[in-house]
Amino acid sequence: MFLLMNFSLSASGQSDTTKRYIKVPAGYLMVLRQGDNVFSEIEKMATAENIPAATFTGMGFVNARFGFFNFKTKEYAPKDFKDMELASMTGSVAWQDGKASLHIHGVVTGKDFKAYGGHLLSASVSTGSLEIMFTLHDKPLQRIKEEPLGANVLQLGK
Amino acid sequence: MFLLMNFSLSASGQSDTTKRYIKVPAGYLMVLRQGDNVFSEIEKMATAENIPAATFTGMGFVNARFGFFNFKTKEYAPKDFKDMELASMTGSVAWQDGKASLHIHGVVTGKDFKAYGGHLLSASVSTGSLEIMFTLHDKPLQRIKEEPLGANVLQLGK
Amino acid sequence: MFLLMNFSLSASGQSDTTKRYIKVPAGYLMVLRQGDNVFSEIEKMATAENIPAATFTGMGFVNARFGFFNFKTKEYAPKDFKDMELASMTGSVAWQDGKASLHIHGVVTGKDFKAYGGHLLSASVSTGSLEIMFTLHDKPLQRIKEEPLGANVLQLGK
Repeated sequence: MFLLMNFSLSASGQSDTTKRYIKVPAGYLMVLRQGDNVFSEIEKMATAENIPAATFTGMGFVNARFGFFNFKTKEYAPKDFKDMELASMTGSVAWQDGKASLHIHGVVTGKDFKAYGGHLLSASVSTGSLEIMFTLHDKPLQRIKEEPLGANVLQLGK
Repeated sequence: MFLLMNFSLSASGQSDTTKRYIKVPAGYLMVLRQGDNVFSEIEKMATAENIPAATFTGMGFVNARFGFFNFKTKEYAPKDFKDMELASMTGSVAWQDGKASLHIHGVVTGKDFKAYGGHLLSASVSTGSLEIMFTLHDKPLQRIKEEPLGANVLQLGK
Repeated sequence: MFLLMNFSLSASGQSDTTKRYIKVPAGYLMVLRQGDNVFSEIEKMATAENIPAATFTGMGFVNARFGFFNFKTKEYAPKDFKDMELASMTGSVAWQDGKASLHIHGVVTGKDFKAYGGHLLSASVSTGSLEIMFTLHDKPLQRIKEEPLGANVLQLGK
């Protein structure tokens, strides 16, 4: 159990002790590997390092699920994209109900170089890697679901 | 008049005293709300905080007008996109003729997840929010229209 | 020879002594000009300033060659895009075999505002400019070609 919590399993099933992130002057630099769950890895880092909040940019090679928000039903219509270049990723880390709350947008491209994207619902690293640069904030920030909007909004205070 | 200058009007027409930005170690973090004019809010912050210059990234949900520059006519051919995810936004703040000068590029996506974008001419926040991270520079930078290019270029000096 | 090494030639063939980058608190701010080779200019800066590593974002107007990695042949299928807005650029600078090693993804758009992109193989500035913000890291980072992946991966250590 201890091993499972501290080591990632690579795509080949072998334990992988490679560091997923390091501290840098502006915040943290993360490099994820094939098979890594993007949301889980960021949430794990946010929790382990107890970061107040952060904004990030990234790029890599992924399987991604995007969702387009329907403001009538308040639900996301999802679509999956496999083995795509992640041409850009922009997001933020805040807190909601005591848990790390991520908001991530991305753009992916395939063999024909056509671009798709939007609001990321989930993503994993495909045959490649994923680099993410986190710029750290010093104030703990919350995300709150606002009504009648029905969507989470990062709170800066009054 | 004092009220109009200090409070934003929300989409519902009510005054909204929510902070639009806070200071963070790298610069400023901005969260815009439904109905906010993206260019105006950034210009207001740049002027109020008297920032020398800044580079920024962002993402959100917007109505956006893009323009493609025609180097023969020196004019932008515009196109409007409504209620789109802003999958990425990249820009800079400098100064021109004593006023804040913005240069912003973006990528938007709709229900079908297809991506469009380029040079942003104007944008407002649609049914959602818009997060922007500003990395602050310490030297005041100017943007100057260069000829024969006919386009504004950020000046770093000789 | 000395002149050729220290001055860039502008698109009009005249020597151009304009600074390509300046130091800012977070790292470096670069503005490239018409005709500049994007990869060469970043490599030159990385070498001249002996930077340990950096992550960057940018936008501008470019001629770009993207490549989609074929994991069977381990080769990039290339495609060229001319006179396009660079709607977003995300990348990193590390070192490999003693030389600056760049990894850059981008999104470009043309007259019809449709977006294309992915892994950048090469790029030059077209009729416009290109702004790049480098966030500097304090630890020297290496990029290593990992097998069986066959792709370069930024190394953070064990």
